[in-house]
Amino acid sequence: MRVALIGYGSVARAFVRLLDEQKKRFPFRIAGAHTLRHGTAYGPELAFGPAAANVAEFLDKAQAEVLVELSSLAPETGEPALTHIREAFARGLHVVTANKGPLAHAFAALRAEAAARGVEFRYESTVMDGSPVYNMVRNCLPGVRVLGFSGALNSTTKIILRAMGNGRTFADGVAEAQSMGIAETDPSYDVDGWDSAVKAAALANVLMDANVRPQEVEREGIRAISAEDVRAAGDAGEQIVLTSRAETLPGGGIRMRVRPERLPIGDPLATVQGTSNLLLLHTDLMGTLGTISIEPRVEQTAYGLLSDLVDITRTL
Amino acid sequence: MRVALIGYGSVARAFVRLLDEQKKRFPFRIAGAHTLRHGTAYGPELAFGPAAANVAEFLDKAQAEVLVELSSLAPETGEPALTHIREAFARGLHVVTANKGPLAHAFAALRAEAAARGVEFRYESTVMDGSPVYNMVRNCLPGVRVLGFSGALNSTTKIILRAMGNGRTFADGVAEAQSMGIAETDPSYDVDGWDSAVKAAALANVLMDANVRPQEVEREGIRAISAEDVRAAGDAGEQIVLTSRAETLPGGGIRMRVRPERLPIGDPLATVQGTSNLLLLHTDLMGTLGTISIEPRVEQTAYGLLSDLVDITRTL
Repeated sequence: MRVALIGYGSVARAFVRLLDEQKKRFPFRIAGAHTLRHGTAYGPELAFGPAAANVAEFLDKAQAEVLVELSSLAPETGEPALTHIREAFARGLHVVTANKGPLAHAFAALRAEAAARGVEFRYESTVMDGSPVYNMVRNCLPGVRVLGFSGALNSTTKIILRAMGNGRTFADGVAEAQSMGIAETDPSYDVDGWDSAVKAAALANVLMDANVRPQEVEREGIRAISAEDVRAAGDAGEQIVLTSRAETLPGGGIRMRVRPERLPIGDPLATVQGTSNLLLLHTDLMGTLGTISIEPRVEQTAYGLLSDLVDITRTL
Repeated sequence: MRVALIGYGSVARAFVRLLDEQKKRFPFRIAGAHTLRHGTAYGPELAFGPAAANVAEFLDKAQAEVLVELSSLAPETGEPALTHIREAFARGLHVVTANKGPLAHAFAALRAEAAARGVEFRYESTVMDGSPVYNMVRNCLPGVRVLGFSGALNSTTKIILRAMGNGRTFADGVAEAQSMGIAETDPSYDVDGWDSAVKAAALANVLMDANVRPQEVEREGIRAISAEDVRAAGDAGEQIVLTSRAETLPGGGIRMRVRPERLPIGDPLATVQGTSNLLLLHTDLMGTLGTISIEPRVEQTAYGLLSDLVDITRTL
């Protein structure tokens, strides 16, 4: 199967390395890559030359069967990933993406477009860095209805809150997260809960047919949390965690909230530190179960993309 | 697909209820049930009459396509489940079991026998009460090698150790676990680490091709733990947990251990209390990831059997 890439950052490079290491076991071949920064490359050597005029031209020339979409995300809109995915569907390509924006902003429409074109759409690496969540529900929980979820899914806020618990400042925590390559220069997206809201919307749209957008998630970030608050929680055997929660209401709607919560230190959501993640699914037939991922790195995100490609080949 | 049952305890009854509730979505039909206590029944009504002379006669008469094996387990040998599974394979039946013994004692042989007969073998409910572990690795982690695992998988010892941490005695904890229907009259199987060793051997045999038996797992139970030990750990911000661990040694062998460990209260393995479970898999391509299950009940074990049946139908 021939794979076209859009984007060539750290995840894409790890993915290309992984495909090369695994080429005997998994017959995926790079057909080309299109980027804003490096230009466009055709063929497995990824020799970048002048940029294609647009994504349509790249896809037409690359002659791939699947697009792996890894462009940089504008989380307020899901663009440009959303448009790239639609260009691929329109050409009969399957799509794998690590961009959560398209799921958070337009999942129901994308699912319908993929079905109309008879192509597959996968997105395991959008949340929890490639650990099985979407594919676990799809492949291992047949007939199960997800009624809600609770997750501790944002790394930057975990690092900031831990720093404050250790006697350092909010700014120290931001600097630590930035030095780890996790937080942006402007940490607002994480600190104000946007990242958690986009992940929550993506999860709810895929797992619960919620049809929500991130702007509709009740959202409270951690700016108002002081070091004193963090220490007071610690003295009470608790920890402050920025959680993403969804619940099906008795009337049938879905309530979605991102907010800092004081949880007992022994609570599963309080145990995941730094880049580790935990997501609990509340279900009808399987009670509460979840996935935990300990300090995943870019190689795990890359593996999630490979697992999606394999999952697509199983449906063909 | 016609399903024969061996055993008719609480899991089997929950499974029959689940099949009935889900009959529109999943076309599995009960062909009969064979038990030591109730006799044998043929047909979906489960009207028990005189017992078949033996399992062979039951399977021959029931005319099923899959056996769901739920007999009581002798954990030292895996029998009688092991023999039942082989009788089914010999007749060309697929098998789903909730008995971990056969995996712990003879997995490699059973896998080979199933392959030779061209039938499928599934066992999701043997560990973690139906939460995706085996099927997650099978269906969601293609190409991933499991290098080791660490789990907190025994409920009785969690309840005993928590009781001792709360100022009660070992005997109080045993009584509590018994009143919850979790511990046997003789709690030695749990307390001495046999249950954890059987689960570890089952996991290692399936996920790591370990070819070990429970007797080969280094094993230390919790009898030597005093209430004083538990409180001292708590005063140090730690908790005593009976863990099951496997690791691939540099030389290529596998070291397997069951023992009480003092873990920080924030350690994921220390967060699961009572009947909750956590299993972390240490892998090559996906780093460390795992499954968590919060207070599963018999309905979840029953669902694991259904998920195995669906998984079998997908291979056909």
